[in-house]
Amino acid sequence: MPMAPIFFDHISTTPLDPRVFEAMKPYFTDWYGNPSSHIHDQGQAAQKAVEAARGKVAALVNASPAEIVFTSGATESNNLALKGAAGAQAGKKRHIVVSEIEHFSILNALIPLRNGGCEVTMLKVDGDGRVDPDDVRRAIRHDTLLVSVMHANAEIGTVEPVADIGRIARERGVLFHTDAAASAGHIPLDVREAGADLVTLSAHNLYGPKGTGALFVREGAKLSPILDGGFQEMGFRAGTENVPGIVGMGAAAEIAGREMGEWAAHLRPLGKRLRDGIAASVNHVHFTGHPADRLPGHVSFWVEFAEGESLLLFLNVHGVMAASGSACSSNLKGRDEEDLVASHVLRAVGVPSDICTGSITFSMGKGNTEAEVDAVLGVLPGIVRKLWEMSPTYLDYQKRIAQGG
Amino acid sequence: MPMAPIFFDHISTTPLDPRVFEAMKPYFTDWYGNPSSHIHDQGQAAQKAVEAARGKVAALVNASPAEIVFTSGATESNNLALKGAAGAQAGKKRHIVVSEIEHFSILNALIPLRNGGCEVTMLKVDGDGRVDPDDVRRAIRHDTLLVSVMHANAEIGTVEPVADIGRIARERGVLFHTDAAASAGHIPLDVREAGADLVTLSAHNLYGPKGTGALFVREGAKLSPILDGGFQEMGFRAGTENVPGIVGMGAAAEIAGREMGEWAAHLRPLGKRLRDGIAASVNHVHFTGHPADRLPGHVSFWVEFAEGESLLLFLNVHGVMAASGSACSSNLKGRDEEDLVASHVLRAVGVPSDICTGSITFSMGKGNTEAEVDAVLGVLPGIVRKLWEMSPTYLDYQKRIAQGG
Repeated sequence: MPMAPIFFDHISTTPLDPRVFEAMKPYFTDWYGNPSSHIHDQGQAAQKAVEAARGKVAALVNASPAEIVFTSGATESNNLALKGAAGAQAGKKRHIVVSEIEHFSILNALIPLRNGGCEVTMLKVDGDGRVDPDDVRRAIRHDTLLVSVMHANAEIGTVEPVADIGRIARERGVLFHTDAAASAGHIPLDVREAGADLVTLSAHNLYGPKGTGALFVREGAKLSPILDGGFQEMGFRAGTENVPGIVGMGAAAEIAGREMGEWAAHLRPLGKRLRDGIAASVNHVHFTGHPADRLPGHVSFWVEFAEGESLLLFLNVHGVMAASGSACSSNLKGRDEEDLVASHVLRAVGVPSDICTGSITFSMGKGNTEAEVDAVLGVLPGIVRKLWEMSPTYLDYQKRIAQGG
Repeated sequence: MPMAPIFFDHISTTPLDPRVFEAMKPYFTDWYGNPSSHIHDQGQAAQKAVEAARGKVAALVNASPAEIVFTSGATESNNLALKGAAGAQAGKKRHIVVSEIEHFSILNALIPLRNGGCEVTMLKVDGDGRVDPDDVRRAIRHDTLLVSVMHANAEIGTVEPVADIGRIARERGVLFHTDAAASAGHIPLDVREAGADLVTLSAHNLYGPKGTGALFVREGAKLSPILDGGFQEMGFRAGTENVPGIVGMGAAAEIAGREMGEWAAHLRPLGKRLRDGIAASVNHVHFTGHPADRLPGHVSFWVEFAEGESLLLFLNVHGVMAASGSACSSNLKGRDEEDLVASHVLRAVGVPSDICTGSITFSMGKGNTEAEVDAVLGVLPGIVRKLWEMSPTYLDYQKRIAQGG
């Protein structure tokens, strides 16, 4: 009998919390107004709902409501942070500092900026995927306009020392952006403590709806919009507001703010159980990311001689859904096929690309259980063995061992 | 007893069709996958849903599915069309032709393009708000990269001669973009017949959800993305897809394709009844837009000595929701207050700004009734009289009349 599906892919997206859906529903069925039409009742109801949600999202990260700009998601927020900051400094500053393990919506947004004359310093990370704040200090130049280092990496789970980086950026008068798409609502984030000027938030990564995100823009920070039009979102982002989506993001932020401690307390032991179980039952396994400073319930690893995508396919046959790196790394710019080589993140942490052909990220969510961990542990070793038996390089290795080589 | 609310503001947004909500629901509650995670069942379900919706939106405008790029809404689509086309031609062509009655997401998107070296020709319109296709012919230069003329104007209802404009653009090898946010799903639009290379579509204007739009990109048309990141939407638009929103847009497009003829047949006589009723009961009234080639159920006008925003406020007190121009014209860039002068559209059609202080747009939808038209006709003349009694310029006028001046 096949197992009930097990969703261990919360870094790609999270199931919508039913309470969030309930909060959104009236804005589909009854209150359909356009917030800009605030001269009549429907428009006013929509406007009030958006402002209430703004307050809830702000509260999650200790921001003021006026500092929250709603967007269509984390990709737009990251693009707005980078292109908006560069646009506002055009002709003045032109240097940007990012880490080499940022999301593609950071790395690829740099391409047009470079074409437009920006210069970029890419920060290396250590074997655990951490940026050294001293490297940030050394990278900042007189013409640096922005430092962008993510709060946590979706693929390897590592949490970055953003408060230290933010302090350095602030000392040098440089804007600090952190992409908290993977972390906000899962681990605490206080934009003041992080010293952040710009913070990317994603609704669908915190049990909210797809199609809505936000950018925290510290009061006084200057950004050029990337979507021009009406004067919505304090002039930072034109376009009719996605009212139900924004209401959903507000509800999700409120719930996360209240419950994330509980979720983390549930997920950390599950993560440990999964990691320990894999370590005990699978040979040639290498865990990635920082062992302690990582997202709760996040276990990432690669297995020698086992191709990551095949592992995922076999896991899916057993009802286990997981990711190879981030969902987006399967969509490298210009290629629509699965990425069969180590991701940019794995390369950055020094995983040898000759013996690593893809990694696995198990990312658990608030709804996952110990029984599910045990079920995954029940199928994983068998899948790995099967892949090894199909792998010519593993067979070569076995032959060498047998020959005492 | 106050009347039940009457929503005559369908150009700002439309109520979500309950059938559309039903289609979206499973993608909130059961199928929450990220389409990029198509290595597992949840991701595959999401990917299939997005592709099915793409086919439905394509069918509405006679496009191929691969020519539909989903966005966060019409503002993003308009920005992508203009900035994307200009970006793809950077260093080659730099001239853009638009009409002066375009939406702010066209007009304001021209600001950064001008700053980047583009030159813009603004086409005048006639007293009915129509662009003369011969003006387009005259405006095109050897370095023209794009002509952008809307399909229908939300504020005055006029439908533009897009097929004639498209033919001219095609003859001259210039991309033709039309913003069909206000018209698609209300009047027929065939992208082939229109000779359009780029067409903006909006879900929330066709009884679909807010937060989703699309840009038709004719096969082979070159655009630089404005949101960089993963390889979603054939490389034209990065970011995790708003799956429920896209599913909703697909459902709305399918319903509109099937029913829009019926809706128009219902709305045209309602529009005539409303217009005739106003003409018979309100003095000093001036209807705007083309008398025949206009959106069904759309009646726009201004009344001498009657301030548009006050009219709207009094109408709302009586439960009647309408607009002064487009919802976005109340949000002029850089000002958060109501616009008390004639809009850019009214100025373009030659409305005298000294005696016109705002217009009214009644835009009916498929759910409106003859009884609602009669109810609005029952309150409008009284509101106008009340405003006149409060108007010093009207009292002056009355005095001059009495004195035989």
